[in-house]
Amino acid sequence: MGTPLDWLPTSEFERVLRCVDDRHDRSRAFAAMTRVNTLYMVMRAGSGHLGSSFSAADIVSWLLLNELRNPFDEDGDVYFSSKGHDAPGLYAALIGLGQLPEPLLHRLRRTGGLPGHPDVHTPHMPFNTGSLGMGIAKAKGLVLADRLLGRSRRVYVLTGDGELQEGQIWESLAGAAHRAMGELTVIVDHNKIQSDTWVRDVSDLGDLEAKFASFGWGVLRCDGHDHRQLDAVLRGRAERFPDRPAAVIADTVKGAGCPTFSATTSMGHGERLYRFHSGAPATAEYRSAHAELVGTANELLRRHGLAPLAPHRDGDGDRDGVAARATADGPRLPEIYGKALVHRARRDDRIVALDADLVLDTGLIPFSRRFPERFIECGIAEQDMVSVAGGIAARGLLPFVHSFSCFLHARPNEQIYNNATEGRRVVYVGSLAGLLPAAPGHSHQAVRDVSAVGAIPGLVVLEPASPAEVRAAVDFCASTSSSVYLRLVSAPCPPEVADLRTGPLVVGRGRTVRDGGRTVAVGSGPVVLTELLRAADLLAGDGIDLTVVNLPWLNRVDPAWLADLADRADQLFVVENHYTHGGQADLLARALLELKLPTTPRLHGIGLTEVPTCGTAGEALEAHGLSAARLAGSVRTELLHGARPVPVPVPTRDGARPVPVPTRSPAGSPTTSFTRST
Amino acid sequence: MGTPLDWLPTSEFERVLRCVDDRHDRSRAFAAMTRVNTLYMVMRAGSGHLGSSFSAADIVSWLLLNELRNPFDEDGDVYFSSKGHDAPGLYAALIGLGQLPEPLLHRLRRTGGLPGHPDVHTPHMPFNTGSLGMGIAKAKGLVLADRLLGRSRRVYVLTGDGELQEGQIWESLAGAAHRAMGELTVIVDHNKIQSDTWVRDVSDLGDLEAKFASFGWGVLRCDGHDHRQLDAVLRGRAERFPDRPAAVIADTVKGAGCPTFSATTSMGHGERLYRFHSGAPATAEYRSAHAELVGTANELLRRHGLAPLAPHRDGDGDRDGVAARATADGPRLPEIYGKALVHRARRDDRIVALDADLVLDTGLIPFSRRFPERFIECGIAEQDMVSVAGGIAARGLLPFVHSFSCFLHARPNEQIYNNATEGRRVVYVGSLAGLLPAAPGHSHQAVRDVSAVGAIPGLVVLEPASPAEVRAAVDFCASTSSSVYLRLVSAPCPPEVADLRTGPLVVGRGRTVRDGGRTVAVGSGPVVLTELLRAADLLAGDGIDLTVVNLPWLNRVDPAWLADLADRADQLFVVENHYTHGGQADLLARALLELKLPTTPRLHGIGLTEVPTCGTAGEALEAHGLSAARLAGSVRTELLHGARPVPVPVPTRDGARPVPVPTRSPAGSPTTSFTRST
Repeated sequence: MGTPLDWLPTSEFERVLRCVDDRHDRSRAFAAMTRVNTLYMVMRAGSGHLGSSFSAADIVSWLLLNELRNPFDEDGDVYFSSKGHDAPGLYAALIGLGQLPEPLLHRLRRTGGLPGHPDVHTPHMPFNTGSLGMGIAKAKGLVLADRLLGRSRRVYVLTGDGELQEGQIWESLAGAAHRAMGELTVIVDHNKIQSDTWVRDVSDLGDLEAKFASFGWGVLRCDGHDHRQLDAVLRGRAERFPDRPAAVIADTVKGAGCPTFSATTSMGHGERLYRFHSGAPATAEYRSAHAELVGTANELLRRHGLAPLAPHRDGDGDRDGVAARATADGPRLPEIYGKALVHRARRDDRIVALDADLVLDTGLIPFSRRFPERFIECGIAEQDMVSVAGGIAARGLLPFVHSFSCFLHARPNEQIYNNATEGRRVVYVGSLAGLLPAAPGHSHQAVRDVSAVGAIPGLVVLEPASPAEVRAAVDFCASTSSSVYLRLVSAPCPPEVADLRTGPLVVGRGRTVRDGGRTVAVGSGPVVLTELLRAADLLAGDGIDLTVVNLPWLNRVDPAWLADLADRADQLFVVENHYTHGGQADLLARALLELKLPTTPRLHGIGLTEVPTCGTAGEALEAHGLSAARLAGSVRTELLHGARPVPVPVPTRDGARPVPVPTRSPAGSPTTSFTRST
Repeated sequence: MGTPLDWLPTSEFERVLRCVDDRHDRSRAFAAMTRVNTLYMVMRAGSGHLGSSFSAADIVSWLLLNELRNPFDEDGDVYFSSKGHDAPGLYAALIGLGQLPEPLLHRLRRTGGLPGHPDVHTPHMPFNTGSLGMGIAKAKGLVLADRLLGRSRRVYVLTGDGELQEGQIWESLAGAAHRAMGELTVIVDHNKIQSDTWVRDVSDLGDLEAKFASFGWGVLRCDGHDHRQLDAVLRGRAERFPDRPAAVIADTVKGAGCPTFSATTSMGHGERLYRFHSGAPATAEYRSAHAELVGTANELLRRHGLAPLAPHRDGDGDRDGVAARATADGPRLPEIYGKALVHRARRDDRIVALDADLVLDTGLIPFSRRFPERFIECGIAEQDMVSVAGGIAARGLLPFVHSFSCFLHARPNEQIYNNATEGRRVVYVGSLAGLLPAAPGHSHQAVRDVSAVGAIPGLVVLEPASPAEVRAAVDFCASTSSSVYLRLVSAPCPPEVADLRTGPLVVGRGRTVRDGGRTVAVGSGPVVLTELLRAADLLAGDGIDLTVVNLPWLNRVDPAWLADLADRADQLFVVENHYTHGGQADLLARALLELKLPTTPRLHGIGLTEVPTCGTAGEALEAHGLSAARLAGSVRTELLHGARPVPVPVPTRDGARPVPVPTRSPAGSPTTSFTRST
């Protein structure tokens, strides 16, 4: 912590662009310098994608400096990245070109700064990418709109190679050829490594040139780090394929540009996992990589008789940066989950685990090692994975399907429903659920998953809050007769919930985690329960004794349990790590009214109402009203304004006005009998 | 109406199978006979897919009779159709083989009969298909499970060629090659016509053999109507590609088997729309086709010295069949919509319409003719279409995106959300929304769309009920600042709602369509409102004066409007053409409780709780409690059991028990003041 970090001001880029007259060397030096700043940004943010930014840096530099016509003008050529996680590299280039303000260098993955994945609110980002596979289709939309508007712009899209496993990529190719889109060029950053490991080991791409060609595209190929080759290939593109979309397969190396991160030098012989896909490197790695990158640039400058680079330093005194880099502690539920799954699978050989290239992040490494034959790596192919699971379930086995929740609930939404209509039992495990971590941005923040799958018949949505509850959840998933969508928060469990105990899980029933008065807050998962427990501490000072209830079921509630809860509550706050619409508040409101209880508590739902912000955990919780302080504030406000008695009319079976509301009898039973008009 | 229809009993198939000793001729005769019964089933049902059943009939016959090993045994080879709409043909073959009971011939698309698309509850249907593109992945699941279980079965999947436009097809190919799935054979029924027209005009498939080969698959090709070629190609498949999945591209003709339906003979020169993709033919076409098919079979029988076929006749006396074939009358909202869109687009040149191969069913033919340059046919590629729309919207145009609602809300679910996170304005128009028509079965019944997209920020879900409301809805879509999901019921509008007037639409506000008493039913769309108006008539006889309110907004409610409604209601019934979870009942319940009104009516939601049934409209409405009679019954029951007064506790700001509920003061204001404990 507190390592001094060096960065290059925009003025240094200006100097190099001005003084290096060979355009290949200028582009090479520029690329090396963007890598310096990319490394700085990721180190400072504490996370971000280095490997992919580095593999694309030469392509991006060449395009922006030489190939694109007026890329920063309204009517100019367009470039964007479909994979999107190479955003830090693109930001660094745009800052180097003076197209984004220099101070944003220090604000990667912060609220009001530069999001972890591209967002249209940042200048020169035409699309929100990071959800893979959409870029070519978006580019086609630009081309079609430009044709309608009578404008002529060229569109360049960068894709990953792992990204090519997404079906939407291939879905989008035919239409572009069909409409003779000579305006469209796709560049494949063919670095051969996807999130976890080698593309060829996950789901080999086979003959990539033949694939694009078979869809009617022109195909070109070059070394994506060789600026002369990039130059030649891109210059020849229009001539060779004037009326066809073209794919440039750019052979690159993940982490290219410095030996520390380069896949060719950083991975030992036979090593399978590349270590610099995402996340900040260790200090020693930072230092060596920084030195290597600056050395590369300086060597180019020296050749052109220029003074070496003069980086600026962000030091120990920069508390803000240090704070952002501080890593939260506590157990991580996906890791607990992965161990629990192994434990369960030892005595249940029906269990099969399917993964979509996120074995590191879904806790599946222990399972994949212990049961390699029962582990199926599907690649970045969520629809395929879910339908494969349906086929496996059809044979009586029990598939557990894994991805980030942001992708799992949405990309294969119809496939999950299709499995449900067959009555197949499948367990869907979505990690990285909810608002946190907020650093990657909205493409990775799953705050719509409950609503998007909650209505699927026979599918129970369950969000455990603690390690103990995760273990109980795995047992539930393996033994229930329902399908389950298991919503796993990946942010570390704070101490408030890390030791939370649980009994066996009973569908639709919750458990009080803090006894208090008749103001009751209901929520699920580690993020909400932690903030609620902290809010309760804040409210205690005001004489408000908040009861906090953990209801881990997000689309089921047991009427008897709810009636009992309602009996103990005057006011229910339902707090959700999700949009307010379609979650637990809707569920409980409807269930409460349908209970026909003698008394009905008030209800107030708290959750997200807008697209989630990118930032630190604290920034995001605060922005969306989910921090302890803001939750306490909401409770206070509601109690002040909502604390009025609520007479309820007597329903009658006709069109007459209601009879007066009766007083409650001592036993609490109603004193007015049913009346019927003629 | 009332045309006598002829069908072949299973005993006739048995005779032919027993007596024709040449296996190619046996298979040919069998195929011709399945076509006779397919035509019968579709005529009797009043709808169904002839063209695709006929193009696949020779393939299916050859596979079932000759290629598959023990296809009806637990451990035998598996065959299924991924496209699924060729189900009538497969049913006819299974009935011919005695593998399904003969009486089911008369029960296509009826509750308790044979669903419009395959369903696992029918014997020998391993999967629910009809949602395109999932079949290869499901088959891979079978292969992987079989490998784990130590069994060896071969799996044969039939796909359409239009279906190959779906990205999931290509997403699923790489994994099969990666895992060397010699067990898996895909047969492409390459009939060159998708739902609406020629595949080459929609989105040309290009070099199909090269495509499969580039994904590492073995590729074979044959005439899909030539039983000798099918024999040879399938026999050679294992030898040629022992350790690879293989695709057999079977060149076929849509509607093959009789000149009346064959695309080569039924389409005039330059004619674009094939008329027999779905739906029952006219009587004259039935008669000629039936004669041609029987003639083909009889010629084969004659060659083998056998007596001609002896069909049975289902005549005029068959009221049940006639009833099922009766076509409902009334305006169809997609048609009204299409005209309204043209009208609006005349004065708004931002409007662009995108379609996913359902131009006939989404009302877009007038638009495509009037504004060909602003009409974009995307093919069966919903994800691509939605992201293309995002690109078009990025240039300031206003895309209207069209498909069946069952596909539109689910397949591109993540892509719709992605557009929303960019704040792009896109109008999504999903026709065929809701439970009806129930004949196609659950793959086509969109009863989960509201929940699946309802939480997307900035997206308003709107379901118009009448022609006038559709026209208002189009104006709303074109002029609002939100994105809109327009939910269009395709079943004809009954007279009760066909003339329903509407004023300008105001978000979240409904309109009373039947004035009545304080028992209020809320709903939207023609199906629900019709049944509610009919239920009101039934209830009037019991002295219950039901107020019926049309609230066309499915994820928005105006608090002031709701407060006013609540003031006029003791009991709210919220009736939905949708699953009960995630729809209007949840929305209104939550909003009611959060209103903090002095009085809160009871609420009771009515909607689907299970996967929708296939059948006639009457069967489906009755089965799911949405017929007028069942709605009236629900209202009666609730009023009998729910009509008790409901005291509500006074919220306090502490943990004390509630103070007694006060009587209501004459002015209706509370008499108990806020209390606070220490």
